[in-house]
Amino acid sequence: MAKQKKAPRPKAETPKGFRDYFGHEVTTRAEMLRTIAGVYHRYGFDALESSAVETVEALGKFLPDVDRPNEGVFAWQEDEGDWLALRYDLTAPLARVYAQHRNDLPTPYRRYAMGPVWRNEKPGPGRYRQFYQCDADTVGSGSVAADAEICAMLADTLQEVGIPRGDYVVRVNNRKVLNGVLEAIGLSDDLLLNTRPMTVNQAAEALYSEMVRRNIESISKLDVLRQIDKFDKVGEDGVMQLLTEGREDASGAFIEGVGLTESSAARVIKFLTAKAETPAETLTNLRSAIGESVIGAEGVDELEQIADLLAAQGYGPDRIVIDPSVVRGLGYYTGPVFEAELTFEIFDEKGRKRQFGSVAGGGRYDDLVKRFTGQAVPATGVSIGVDRLLAALREKGRIEAREVGPVVVTVMDRDRMADYQAMVGELRQAGIRAEVYLGNPKNFGNQLKYADRRHSPVAVIEGGDEKANGVVQIKDLILGAQIAETATLEEWKDRPSQFEVPRDQLVAKVREILDAHGL
Amino acid sequence: MAKQKKAPRPKAETPKGFRDYFGHEVTTRAEMLRTIAGVYHRYGFDALESSAVETVEALGKFLPDVDRPNEGVFAWQEDEGDWLALRYDLTAPLARVYAQHRNDLPTPYRRYAMGPVWRNEKPGPGRYRQFYQCDADTVGSGSVAADAEICAMLADTLQEVGIPRGDYVVRVNNRKVLNGVLEAIGLSDDLLLNTRPMTVNQAAEALYSEMVRRNIESISKLDVLRQIDKFDKVGEDGVMQLLTEGREDASGAFIEGVGLTESSAARVIKFLTAKAETPAETLTNLRSAIGESVIGAEGVDELEQIADLLAAQGYGPDRIVIDPSVVRGLGYYTGPVFEAELTFEIFDEKGRKRQFGSVAGGGRYDDLVKRFTGQAVPATGVSIGVDRLLAALREKGRIEAREVGPVVVTVMDRDRMADYQAMVGELRQAGIRAEVYLGNPKNFGNQLKYADRRHSPVAVIEGGDEKANGVVQIKDLILGAQIAETATLEEWKDRPSQFEVPRDQLVAKVREILDAHGL
Repeated sequence: MAKQKKAPRPKAETPKGFRDYFGHEVTTRAEMLRTIAGVYHRYGFDALESSAVETVEALGKFLPDVDRPNEGVFAWQEDEGDWLALRYDLTAPLARVYAQHRNDLPTPYRRYAMGPVWRNEKPGPGRYRQFYQCDADTVGSGSVAADAEICAMLADTLQEVGIPRGDYVVRVNNRKVLNGVLEAIGLSDDLLLNTRPMTVNQAAEALYSEMVRRNIESISKLDVLRQIDKFDKVGEDGVMQLLTEGREDASGAFIEGVGLTESSAARVIKFLTAKAETPAETLTNLRSAIGESVIGAEGVDELEQIADLLAAQGYGPDRIVIDPSVVRGLGYYTGPVFEAELTFEIFDEKGRKRQFGSVAGGGRYDDLVKRFTGQAVPATGVSIGVDRLLAALREKGRIEAREVGPVVVTVMDRDRMADYQAMVGELRQAGIRAEVYLGNPKNFGNQLKYADRRHSPVAVIEGGDEKANGVVQIKDLILGAQIAETATLEEWKDRPSQFEVPRDQLVAKVREILDAHGL
Repeated sequence: MAKQKKAPRPKAETPKGFRDYFGHEVTTRAEMLRTIAGVYHRYGFDALESSAVETVEALGKFLPDVDRPNEGVFAWQEDEGDWLALRYDLTAPLARVYAQHRNDLPTPYRRYAMGPVWRNEKPGPGRYRQFYQCDADTVGSGSVAADAEICAMLADTLQEVGIPRGDYVVRVNNRKVLNGVLEAIGLSDDLLLNTRPMTVNQAAEALYSEMVRRNIESISKLDVLRQIDKFDKVGEDGVMQLLTEGREDASGAFIEGVGLTESSAARVIKFLTAKAETPAETLTNLRSAIGESVIGAEGVDELEQIADLLAAQGYGPDRIVIDPSVVRGLGYYTGPVFEAELTFEIFDEKGRKRQFGSVAGGGRYDDLVKRFTGQAVPATGVSIGVDRLLAALREKGRIEAREVGPVVVTVMDRDRMADYQAMVGELRQAGIRAEVYLGNPKNFGNQLKYADRRHSPVAVIEGGDEKANGVVQIKDLILGAQIAETATLEEWKDRPSQFEVPRDQLVAKVREILDAHGL
């Protein structure tokens, strides 16, 4: 056997684009997921936790003629030959689960799922290759009541996690209305895709490939979709230019226009800007935008029914509103589309005020299960961006920026560890988070530094004298820090943040200090 | 471009060895993890959620001269060349996290982690390639107080999830004592492994390779470890035979013995069977087994300190006991070893009574971080088998076998969907899980079948007549099912499980029915 070289030390690093979450980050997310699950459950949705690993085949990635089907997903080949991959969203697994278990599941099947998904994409600042999704979907109901229910549930969820009425709005649009508008200006029917792309841009790319494959010449409808997708960025005038003769962008580059006539483009703009003071006016505007299109009329009728259902339940346009300017996802969804936005302002990284923006989106996609079974099954659902929602609550100061640490019982005499353990035992019995210092107790300063690093509110000290006298010293570390900032030396020496109490009043005194700090 | 064949439909199947979890399975596990996290938190442990994906290098798998380092792990190569893998436990990532973030973390660092891990192993019945682990570890403390704390926390955790005192026992052993015994019978020092293998057998395999690599001739200590690992299965006499001249197994095959002398083997057996009526006697037996060994004496002293610390906190031997017959993990750990067992009896698949057995295990492993930093960092921890614990609680009837479904409001008139949505709105406001039937309402029987499949306790009916009269029909489905089993035709016709109430008493009546069933 050849002699091996001693391997160099491994690097202690997360892979590129991955990160770890610590303490409070983990528990606040868990608490939020639990709250959301509570709302979903109350609406009759059942939990589903599907396997994180799927066959590439079931995920619906197209297996190209290359060695590894790993574009966009993390994939590997089993010894026996199957390609497996980490799920990239929670919808593709839902399709597989529903197709696999449909005989045992109720119809309609309302399910929620929450957990990590993985994307094999180039990581960027704040963009990770593993992140949480939190979805609710109703499979097997074509009724717009299912869409309305999802919107109402989304509004309830936002309120329950701490976004009050007035700080959010759920906007509803309908792909069928857009289809009607496109029909009205003479553009042919869309090509349907069997996979679920992530963004409209990706949908457009896929659509484009499909068109090339099928040797279809006209791509103007696709182009229209592409330009509409820029509405959020370039606004009404910008999209108007892009749909007609083209436009110079901020960098001075000229972007070729789609070449629609002014009147055709105006119809698209009419659709995008149809939102009026009241739902009724918005619907009237939409009806005029779609002209004689049958599919368009169906879409407007659906929006009307959704608005009526929601109004009857008390969800007025201050919370859920018909808004045709919602374009995100129109390329993918087949019917109603929803997006939840937080409307309060925050300061961006450059100190400018801006609206916080989107935290959830969804819609109706009716071809979910077909690729497995051949049978079309209607479905509608929503996905909440949990990490964005947490960021929003932090911005608004509705989540404590950091957690209060445990009460630390210091070790003055390492032979009396049992005494100190008894103290934390009593504190925990009273529901107080507490621990004994378990590092080397030799240097007492290190113990207080440790308590500081843990953001501990209280430290407990029992040296030999205290033990003999039946007392303990209790340091209020929060008050201590406040005094340290402002006190004179004399005041400091008095140590007004340290209390000596009889041993049997340990728990009561600690409780009193925690209460005084509202902990 | 070549014409592509139409792809066959994908199979709707989980990959081999993976499974999905539905409804109640998901929520009961989430509830249990939350309870456990609550105890860990109270003990001062901080949550950590590390990335599910690690570099193969950081996980510590030896990269062989083959194409893929996928033995035991799911691994794949990045385009740029790094090998990544799904974590196979929560300890290897802890080592990486601690090494990476040690300057920002407190020392000692108490952390807990819960989540799925993945093993690329041959799946078997009830053996999955993705499963949950739930760990708590203290990194950076060499004190046995840290070990004692883990044991106390484990006992508290078991009680808090619903295993009462008397139904569990935490057994504690110490690898140093075994080392002392082996020293006493003249076996040389162990080779230390830098990875964390899963079982003693795997540790033994790795040790064996290492010995071959280093060209070490004597493997008798390894053999002793291997035979000790069989103590649970073959008992005292069996191990005695295996340590000396060998033994015929149940199949009639002869297993070669290690070749120890009778007196040496007797010393090992003395260690394994040292447990006595009281901790003091057990410790005396152990002192006699280790003879003059220094490391052995250190081990017995540690056990004594642990027993004293725990006794001082009220954890007597009815809950946490020194038990040298705990051999699981002795090959891997370096100091104290713990194992929690449930002591009540269940019926196995063949209808025989047996003890439920182990639900958690852990111990001290002091070389965790060294491979990254070169610096030895002491650590001790425990891992709870959440799925086994859930199974135990189900066995004992402490978790409902299935969940009660939502109240189902049926749809008699599809144009009055808003009325039905208003009803579920009121029920949810009152905290009652409720939903409108969203399938095709044409066939009323299907709606009741749906309610049945959802295990709904109550169905609500409001047809045209009811609407006109300002009433609703409320069906108690649980009572209905009971009556259906026992009633005569006459009783059945009376429909004693269906109630007509004024519309404004809907919520009160549903609440009354749920209360009557203890829901």
